[in-house]
Amino acid sequence: MPNPQTTRQIVLDARPNGTPTTSNFRVESTPLPHLSAGEILVANEAMSVDPYMRGRMNDTKSYMPPFQVGQPLDGAAVGEVIASNSDDVAVGSHVLHGLGWREHSVLNAAKAQIVDTTLAPASAHLGVLGMPGLTAYAGLMKAGEFRAGDAVFVSGAAGAVGSLVGQIAKLSGASLVIGSAGSAEKVDYLKEIGFDAAFNYKDGPVVEQLTKAALEGIDVYFDNVGGDHLEAALSALTVHGRVTLCGMISQYNDTEPAPGPRNLGLAIGKRLRLHGLLVGDYADVQPEFVAKMAGWLQADEISYRETVVDGLTEAPQAFIDLFNGTNTGKMVVRL
Amino acid sequence: MPNPQTTRQIVLDARPNGTPTTSNFRVESTPLPHLSAGEILVANEAMSVDPYMRGRMNDTKSYMPPFQVGQPLDGAAVGEVIASNSDDVAVGSHVLHGLGWREHSVLNAAKAQIVDTTLAPASAHLGVLGMPGLTAYAGLMKAGEFRAGDAVFVSGAAGAVGSLVGQIAKLSGASLVIGSAGSAEKVDYLKEIGFDAAFNYKDGPVVEQLTKAALEGIDVYFDNVGGDHLEAALSALTVHGRVTLCGMISQYNDTEPAPGPRNLGLAIGKRLRLHGLLVGDYADVQPEFVAKMAGWLQADEISYRETVVDGLTEAPQAFIDLFNGTNTGKMVVRL
Repeated sequence: MPNPQTTRQIVLDARPNGTPTTSNFRVESTPLPHLSAGEILVANEAMSVDPYMRGRMNDTKSYMPPFQVGQPLDGAAVGEVIASNSDDVAVGSHVLHGLGWREHSVLNAAKAQIVDTTLAPASAHLGVLGMPGLTAYAGLMKAGEFRAGDAVFVSGAAGAVGSLVGQIAKLSGASLVIGSAGSAEKVDYLKEIGFDAAFNYKDGPVVEQLTKAALEGIDVYFDNVGGDHLEAALSALTVHGRVTLCGMISQYNDTEPAPGPRNLGLAIGKRLRLHGLLVGDYADVQPEFVAKMAGWLQADEISYRETVVDGLTEAPQAFIDLFNGTNTGKMVVRL
Repeated sequence: MPNPQTTRQIVLDARPNGTPTTSNFRVESTPLPHLSAGEILVANEAMSVDPYMRGRMNDTKSYMPPFQVGQPLDGAAVGEVIASNSDDVAVGSHVLHGLGWREHSVLNAAKAQIVDTTLAPASAHLGVLGMPGLTAYAGLMKAGEFRAGDAVFVSGAAGAVGSLVGQIAKLSGASLVIGSAGSAEKVDYLKEIGFDAAFNYKDGPVVEQLTKAALEGIDVYFDNVGGDHLEAALSALTVHGRVTLCGMISQYNDTEPAPGPRNLGLAIGKRLRLHGLLVGDYADVQPEFVAKMAGWLQADEISYRETVVDGLTEAPQAFIDLFNGTNTGKMVVRL
């Protein structure tokens, strides 16, 4: 089969104002360039949609440059190398790279990472073995300074990161692991995978549900949500408690800045430590993480789910659905 | 002169609701007990009023038990031992102890700390050489993880703690030290004692004044104030910046919880670290602090001021005036 001459990609058609809609995106055909020296052509099999991408759709300075209107989006993807001008990456290899949101990607082989597909399917490198997995591990163990015996609360607990945070905490000796999620089905899922307690934050005030689940308080809060979850956690944290600030998905679509927690002053009396987390700071933890996670997966001690959506044209809706809580585990677009 | 049979003390007459008034306090005469074995009688020369005491006037669980209505207040005081039933503390010694808000105190000698009055007057042990000094030092160097070259911003900078934070930062190699205070006189004072820049927060939005003073951002924010100061600092902080949460004096008299900073989400992308501070956690830093501070005082490299109010009956007003910003440096009541 000859290599394709064109491919399809998702372009940012207009910046979202508040909650994104499919009209903010369009599908575009584009010619594939010839491979320069050192380049590879990847037929993408799966791509990632992640909440952090919402920030890049705004025209604001942040830790990553904003997406440009009229230009293709990007993000993590995995696929098979179908042509190679590099001695380092052979045709037939599976690679993880950063040019997702398209069916084929041309990139320098040095920017691709060959992935092992014997332990888990390639798409696992977008989730449990990839960025969300390292985020969970480093965010809990390093930024959150987790110690055996800690009581841990994680919000967005049925998501790609949260579901791993809870399981890693249990496997590492947590005394209690509590998760919050947005549906009864997700709450059931959390109990299935070993959370000691879980609640649906739509069932009542977070502070009340958390207090009931953690009568003696929590030592670590892993925040994926912000808002009233963070405020409830600040109330429930014990002296010298820790907060990993990983995400604030409740606020990503806000057009006006939302007020912060009214009880941040508690951080003084309780000597809390709040640490903002970007996974990019933890490249040095990657070998430790991969070793541990591979061990847990081989021993069947950790489980993970993917919510799979089919087809590039469905990627915008899959992204939008992250904010509707449609996914359990990692949201993956199969290409 | 025979020892007194009675003394006077300040009693909490009613819990303040919002801003305290003098009617929340009353002066009371009380008999002095005979000294039991190991006890001393101290004629207090100076006592401390501190913002943290406001929290103890509420009937809420916190890191220290609340003051009780009808009972005397307490806090740091220094004085001369005028009677002793202890072999460890001789009559004539000067001691620092925790039973302030009264003209004489009877306490176990083990709870008193003999102070050196050759380096500085006894009252300095309520400020530059005491709890506020250690708070400034440990809060900057330990909780704030200060490193030479950092740009530092401190709010409440003309206060007992803030004025030391700025000077310690300069002496320790800060590239830039900025302070905020509530009057033109205080701003002048900050420049006199070596702050590179200072502004009156009443002159305009903190975020604008801070941005102008710190064109390249700040690396450490030492928060004594909370509110819009904290929000402005979160905006100005650089990647991997640090916040020492030491006090939120702007909110201590609030009857409803004030909204938190609207931009706390910045802590994720900038990987900020916010650390709540209570000086009691840093007893192990005390020797290092005393050695350094004594050296700086002897070399005349650090300056400190006291705002002195005369007489026990003026202590409630002195306390209330902390929230009016009447003091520059440590507020001390001379007894």
